[in-house]
Amino acid sequence: MRTLYHFPLHPPSRMSRIALAEKKLKVREVIVDPWAPDAEFLSLTAEGAPPVLVDLTQHGTLTISGARAITEYANDGSKRHPLLSEDPFERAEARRLCAWFDGRFTDEVDAYILAEKVERAVLSQSQYDAGTPDPDVLREGRAYLADHLDYLATLLEQRDWLAGRRFSLGDISAAAHLSCLDFLGEIPWRDRPVLKDWYQKIKSRPSFRGLLGDRQPGLRAPRHYTDLDF
Amino acid sequence: MRTLYHFPLHPPSRMSRIALAEKKLKVREVIVDPWAPDAEFLSLTAEGAPPVLVDLTQHGTLTISGARAITEYANDGSKRHPLLSEDPFERAEARRLCAWFDGRFTDEVDAYILAEKVERAVLSQSQYDAGTPDPDVLREGRAYLADHLDYLATLLEQRDWLAGRRFSLGDISAAAHLSCLDFLGEIPWRDRPVLKDWYQKIKSRPSFRGLLGDRQPGLRAPRHYTDLDF
Repeated sequence: MRTLYHFPLHPPSRMSRIALAEKKLKVREVIVDPWAPDAEFLSLTAEGAPPVLVDLTQHGTLTISGARAITEYANDGSKRHPLLSEDPFERAEARRLCAWFDGRFTDEVDAYILAEKVERAVLSQSQYDAGTPDPDVLREGRAYLADHLDYLATLLEQRDWLAGRRFSLGDISAAAHLSCLDFLGEIPWRDRPVLKDWYQKIKSRPSFRGLLGDRQPGLRAPRHYTDLDF
Repeated sequence: MRTLYHFPLHPPSRMSRIALAEKKLKVREVIVDPWAPDAEFLSLTAEGAPPVLVDLTQHGTLTISGARAITEYANDGSKRHPLLSEDPFERAEARRLCAWFDGRFTDEVDAYILAEKVERAVLSQSQYDAGTPDPDVLREGRAYLADHLDYLATLLEQRDWLAGRRFSLGDISAAAHLSCLDFLGEIPWRDRPVLKDWYQKIKSRPSFRGLLGDRQPGLRAPRHYTDLDF
């Protein structure tokens, strides 16, 4: 039996959920509040943050922390439904893109837009009025986001999927980040038809279905968020 | 033939150099200035930053960007001298530690200490007097560093290597970061004998030899930096 501790509007958590679903691995999902994790969750991991996968295997209980470790673990487990191409360049591109989303995209976009909107919404639900998002911070994040979406669109003009000919961890990482931003109505799809086509293919994959059902008190997704034909 | 574009006092570059040397792969090294990369280098990669590996294989030229992609590529290439254990938990721990160094350690330690000392030294050599490191910034980085060194020491009290019984990418990532800080005289080894023992084992590995010969104009490493028996 597997349990994934995750938070719905958190890109590394979403990356883990999509990857596990792509590998057709059954997982019980437990939601963790990253800003107020409970003692049971904290006892699982030195990281103190989701995602964490607890897998009860025949060799014992494995506790695996972090999206990169969880997704590679899921992929190492069997050759079926591979998350990385056999082609060495495509494998490297997929891992480069994961690192790019973990680093640059997280620092320049998520740290502005997701932190402003999601963190405030969650905190306002629990303890106190965390105020409204700072428009200057959002503006800065959106400027970076526009550049980064252009870069992704450029890649997709030359490739079927982000890392090459095969769907991969690169697409999963991108989908995890962009879907959180899309939940907040932050992706200008109309200006980037190539990127929109790619996201439409992503959205219709069975692995993505769970994410379309996510809810977050204090936030309401735009109608197109769940629409496969948006 | 392989060429690695790297910068000596840059943890992701060092991670790539150690991993390639552990796999016994011959590499020509080209130093890139991350603050003033030349046009030839920029034409190689959308990342705009080292490390980048260019590998002329029988199937064509592969250009691989980023330490995570380079190290996994090196490891995927052959089963000899593995950088990840066969044990799934140890593999996951190694990847978790890599992500922890890429994220938290980089943000909380490197961004303070390395940025203050190395970036200033490099800029002062080239264009203008970049001033001296800000003591408040260094103090903040050192406080985080002390906590993180304690955490690594705690792991090493229970394990032979950072991710478990086998030397792995987790140790390579840690060695890459700590050796840059050691070059700057920033690691209080004396207070952490378990960590010092681990670093002594790391230093005596042939893969580490190249790093001990690194020089950086404007900075002088303490005498113990190159001493295997420090």
